Amino acid sequence: MSRPAAARPDAIRRHNLSLVLGQVHRDGAVTRAELTQRLGLSRSTIGALVADLTERGLVEESVPSGGPRAGRPSHVVGPHSRGPFVVAADLDVTHVTTAAVGIGGTVLARHVVQTGPLPASAEEVVRHIVEAVPILQAMVGRAEPPVAIGVSVPGTVDRHWGTVGVAPNMGWRNTPFGKLLSELATPHLPVVIGNDADLALLAEHTRGSARDCDDVVMIIGRVGVGSGIIANGAPLRGHDGHAGEIGHNVVDASGPQCHCGNRGCLETYIGDSALLTLAGRDDPPDEVYVAAVFADARTGDPVALTAVQQIAESLGRGLASIVNTLNPQRVILGGSLADILDIAGDAVSTALDRYALDAPGLTAQLTQPTFGADSALLGAAEIAFAALLSDPVANRSVTAAHSASLR
Amino acid sequence: MSRPAAARPDAIRRHNLSLVLGQVHRDGAVTRAELTQRLGLSRSTIGALVADLTERGLVEESVPSGGPRAGRPSHVVGPHSRGPFVVAADLDVTHVTTAAVGIGGTVLARHVVQTGPLPASAEEVVRHIVEAVPILQAMVGRAEPPVAIGVSVPGTVDRHWGTVGVAPNMGWRNTPFGKLLSELATPHLPVVIGNDADLALLAEHTRGSARDCDDVVMIIGRVGVGSGIIANGAPLRGHDGHAGEIGHNVVDASGPQCHCGNRGCLETYIGDSALLTLAGRDDPPDEVYVAAVFADARTGDPVALTAVQQIAESLGRGLASIVNTLNPQRVILGGSLADILDIAGDAVSTALDRYALDAPGLTAQLTQPTFGADSALLGAAEIAFAALLSDPVANRSVTAAHSASLR
Repeated sequence: MSRPAAARPDAIRRHNLSLVLGQVHRDGAVTRAELTQRLGLSRSTIGALVADLTERGLVEESVPSGGPRAGRPSHVVGPHSRGPFVVAADLDVTHVTTAAVGIGGTVLARHVVQTGPLPASAEEVVRHIVEAVPILQAMVGRAEPPVAIGVSVPGTVDRHWGTVGVAPNMGWRNTPFGKLLSELATPHLPVVIGNDADLALLAEHTRGSARDCDDVVMIIGRVGVGSGIIANGAPLRGHDGHAGEIGHNVVDASGPQCHCGNRGCLETYIGDSALLTLAGRDDPPDEVYVAAVFADARTGDPVALTAVQQIAESLGRGLASIVNTLNPQRVILGGSLADILDIAGDAVSTALDRYALDAPGLTAQLTQPTFGADSALLGAAEIAFAALLSDPVANRSVTAAHSASLR
Repeated sequence: MSRPAAARPDAIRRHNLSLVLGQVHRDGAVTRAELTQRLGLSRSTIGALVADLTERGLVEESVPSGGPRAGRPSHVVGPHSRGPFVVAADLDVTHVTTAAVGIGGTVLARHVVQTGPLPASAEEVVRHIVEAVPILQAMVGRAEPPVAIGVSVPGTVDRHWGTVGVAPNMGWRNTPFGKLLSELATPHLPVVIGNDADLALLAEHTRGSARDCDDVVMIIGRVGVGSGIIANGAPLRGHDGHAGEIGHNVVDASGPQCHCGNRGCLETYIGDSALLTLAGRDDPPDEVYVAAVFADARTGDPVALTAVQQIAESLGRGLASIVNTLNPQRVILGGSLADILDIAGDAVSTALDRYALDAPGLTAQLTQPTFGADSALLGAAEIAFAALLSDPVANRSVTAAHSASLR
């Protein structure tokens, strides 16, 4: 179903609508005066664009009451309080977390299903997500369904087909997850899939710790270890979308046995199982038990603290290879690694300095994610919103806006 | 000295001159008809652009004599046989290789100075390059000096200042090499500096093994080990231009002592010293002795062959981490690693398959550089030509062309 190419003035208008909506989505409420300045457009053009986006139910204006400055205050443009939402899903080995997320990246409602103790099958995960959609829609009280579903998967994802290549800790391989979800979601909704670390970094790059940083790596350690990479300001996904799979990089060929069959993978040194083993605990690598080790370390328990220090040193050594290879300005440590950084940041930095190539300027700022455990979920929301943000006209009719506000 | 902004038609013309010259530089001789087709410009516009470039002494036309097809043959546009040249220099621990390189990447003349056995100081290297300029100019018989000097350095290079951050095997640190060379080159010539692996990959990406490949890594093993990375079609240099410094990535924390102070760096497994040690030779890691090991391995000498096989396995394991992290489509192995691939390619592939994450699609083609040991030298020529190629008008007067052809 091809359409004639848009006339030029219409194309410019659509582009400008996308720019204004993108500003509000990324930066939150903003005055018309600021929009005029940031985008270099006239006041009347901004006024017309805001009016159009308002009619589509995407933004709404408020007039600040009073204030220190004289003169007529500029209208404040923010996300529409009854605007569209997406469903974001974040899978890990033991949970399927879903959320309704609005423009601006605001979590409007959240729904968590415990799975496990064994990892859920793709069919089971799809069912949980499909069932969550009407639940979340009811929670946010919208007449309209979500505009799309975005899913964060702890594995490699084929960019083109939404197929999960391998998700080692889920036990998935060549799983047509995106296709399954597309077929079962009712009503039919666009489905977009991404790798968890890539999506976590996307969220942090949009509004968090990686904002305005063009060369940044985010490493997430849970049971497995993965990373997302942004280089030259753009996501580095590699030829098949598998870049950043650092968990099975061998850091010591004579190291501990890994479930992958090799020895001394990074994951065997800095994953949650390593932490529990070093802390002398028999617990499965569930987040409750991992959190207990961190709690003990924070209160000064010597065994827990030593375990954290050992992970910190291995982490610093592993980071050194990442820093040598990619020379990022910043490294964001998420999942359990955020706690390691918090408790034993000095040990991480010392090992990084010791093992990284000693070159002037070859250092990296270490930091925690702004959005904590929600980074991947919010990144999933970002990819679900992408189509609407890039073309609000094609993806949002005026009628839809009216139907959305009826209850 | 600011100039008024170029008028718009002039800017378009300059842009188009750059496009035509770029085609000839990158792809070699090409017919006017092909240029018309590739660039989507009219025959008369192409004719005018070619005439302008010809007048500037950058290209020249020839008319093919006869041929299988009927009709008037299209003129063939190629690099001018008496056109401008650059001086490219490639430094390693024991040599300073300089060359005069013409448009199209053709080596017109070459001059090699043996240094060592100890690495040369920056001052000594600068002197060798400065002295080589008039020698090369005389060898190519041009009245005009080179348009620029490009230098490949085995170390980290600050993109902005031409300062060498650290060149471990040269013993340089925070060395203002670019500034030194700029001050001493007579006549005053533009000087551009780059990292050897980055430049080697640039040359391979322009006309060699990485041509038309958007996600590619080139690893060069000599005494040290370094890499150049192209991701999403663009060079990945990192925040400070130090990306790709993989030689000191620790691959086994309990491995052999490295001169950097740590243990088990990749360099201690796949660098030239490792090969000589494994082959039971006391020789210094000079290319002559390294070549002797490869020659012996090729004739079936069991000790040499076993040494090569062991390097091959370590190389495959090291490659696995690179492949996991960057998911390149292709990996080019240069320097001694090209010989390792040639003699023991199966062992490299087997180890790579064993240690890389077992994900569908996560494989990489392994290949040798098209330009062999000349990749870095040709990459240095590319950066030296960059200004002329991007704006032939600002960087090449019509007068210069005439003076160049006088003898």
